[in-house]
Amino acid sequence: MVFYLVGLGLGGPKDVTVKGLEVIKSASRIYLEAYTSILSCGKDELEAFYGKPVTLADRDMVEQDSETLLADAKELDVAFLVIGDPFGATTHSDLILRAVDKNIPYKVVHNASIMNAIGCCGLQLYNFGETVSIVFWTDTWKPDSFYDKIESNLQRGLHTLCLLDIKVKEQSIENLMRGRKVYEPPRYMTANTACKQLLQVIDNKALNNIKTKLQPDSMCVALSRIGWDNQKIVASKLKDLVNCDIGPPLHSLVIAGEMHPLEEDFLAQFKLVAENSE
Amino acid sequence: MVFYLVGLGLGGPKDVTVKGLEVIKSASRIYLEAYTSILSCGKDELEAFYGKPVTLADRDMVEQDSETLLADAKELDVAFLVIGDPFGATTHSDLILRAVDKNIPYKVVHNASIMNAIGCCGLQLYNFGETVSIVFWTDTWKPDSFYDKIESNLQRGLHTLCLLDIKVKEQSIENLMRGRKVYEPPRYMTANTACKQLLQVIDNKALNNIKTKLQPDSMCVALSRIGWDNQKIVASKLKDLVNCDIGPPLHSLVIAGEMHPLEEDFLAQFKLVAENSE
Repeated sequence: MVFYLVGLGLGGPKDVTVKGLEVIKSASRIYLEAYTSILSCGKDELEAFYGKPVTLADRDMVEQDSETLLADAKELDVAFLVIGDPFGATTHSDLILRAVDKNIPYKVVHNASIMNAIGCCGLQLYNFGETVSIVFWTDTWKPDSFYDKIESNLQRGLHTLCLLDIKVKEQSIENLMRGRKVYEPPRYMTANTACKQLLQVIDNKALNNIKTKLQPDSMCVALSRIGWDNQKIVASKLKDLVNCDIGPPLHSLVIAGEMHPLEEDFLAQFKLVAENSE
Repeated sequence: MVFYLVGLGLGGPKDVTVKGLEVIKSASRIYLEAYTSILSCGKDELEAFYGKPVTLADRDMVEQDSETLLADAKELDVAFLVIGDPFGATTHSDLILRAVDKNIPYKVVHNASIMNAIGCCGLQLYNFGETVSIVFWTDTWKPDSFYDKIESNLQRGLHTLCLLDIKVKEQSIENLMRGRKVYEPPRYMTANTACKQLLQVIDNKALNNIKTKLQPDSMCVALSRIGWDNQKIVASKLKDLVNCDIGPPLHSLVIAGEMHPLEEDFLAQFKLVAENSE
């Protein structure tokens, strides 16, 4: 029949589209990809809303066990649910190609993703350059390739959406070495950590006498839980956002480029007000 | 009460989210912004689906008559429906600011827009640079600022989404001069026209001995009616897409930058097959 990829949008159960819900209700098997983002609700709440069971698909299953996932999809409708839009992450086009290889037709039900919902901060989508991913640094691994992309966007006056690292089902080095399938608790990078890492890159560049467009005073926007009922948006200088609490995950960060007056006006709604000001 | 901006997504009535539909069903007044995009259905079909009347809001109304639009929004829920996501076009953040000025709280119900649904062609969203708009050329007005942005994206190996011009409720120069509110039929730029204009820019640059990254052989993707049941995607060289018919509007065009093998594999599904090849 059909392999459906259904975007769930960014908030809770009701952010699915009417079309997406119809697909889910009529599908024989339902999988939920839940390692590249999070919803405001758990699997149980989705199951209650759909009135049927949902199987969690982790990265191993999606990337290595597509046989199970696509089994019988020639005879039955299978729905693969993705938080946001199905084309947010590489692995899903890979999964589609495996369906195509098996002559299983596929259909996509689109939805909002952070890639377009980010427009809610008032910075215009067509003024954004390349999106970057900021990964957790460790003591020994501090990649900063995202910095060059931000800098390149800034040189053209463009805004940058920074997607922040998510670590789900990660194993400690010890557990990995011993082959123990014991997983660390999930970790979601906060906008604060992202800002801290960016400031450190600026410092490192300064030590090497490299002039950066990105500065501690650069205007940035920290966003949390976009599309949820309790979303939060704060606009301030990069250095100010290091200590600004925007609550639980998911967080995103935007580095503003040159702003149109309307963009500035819109952003003004979200300006950080110093709590100690009198 | 609340001024709601509800994204309708890209296809027909059922592409609204469950949350969005609830908002519409409970709103006292409903406006549909229908001058920056089109749905696969008319206003009457939406009204039948919602079970209530919808008022068309044209550009004049949204940009100049927000008083009418926001009237009573302090006492009643007003829903402003936008094809795609509410943050696709500048005028909507302007409208939100006018609501904020009047102390009317606003809420946004996000949905898919071409800005993220474009991922369905298999080119990864995070490999896209700045989005460009290609406008209809006239005999005397041939702006090509979009070209510099495409070139700048290509130099960084990035893909470019080209949004194609829409002319709705335009007046002929004669009618404009005579103050007659007579409108021309709507015009939607085809991917073919966009390709033709791009080839002409390349020719002009060549005449001036300017070397362009964009070439007649550059890989491009023409897309029509994304998110509709009859969407079409064709991947081929820029010069081949000039004569490729992808049916009724809306069309979009993507200029591919450097491609990851997985992107190439995905795009292969949509390759133009020469109809006369033997």
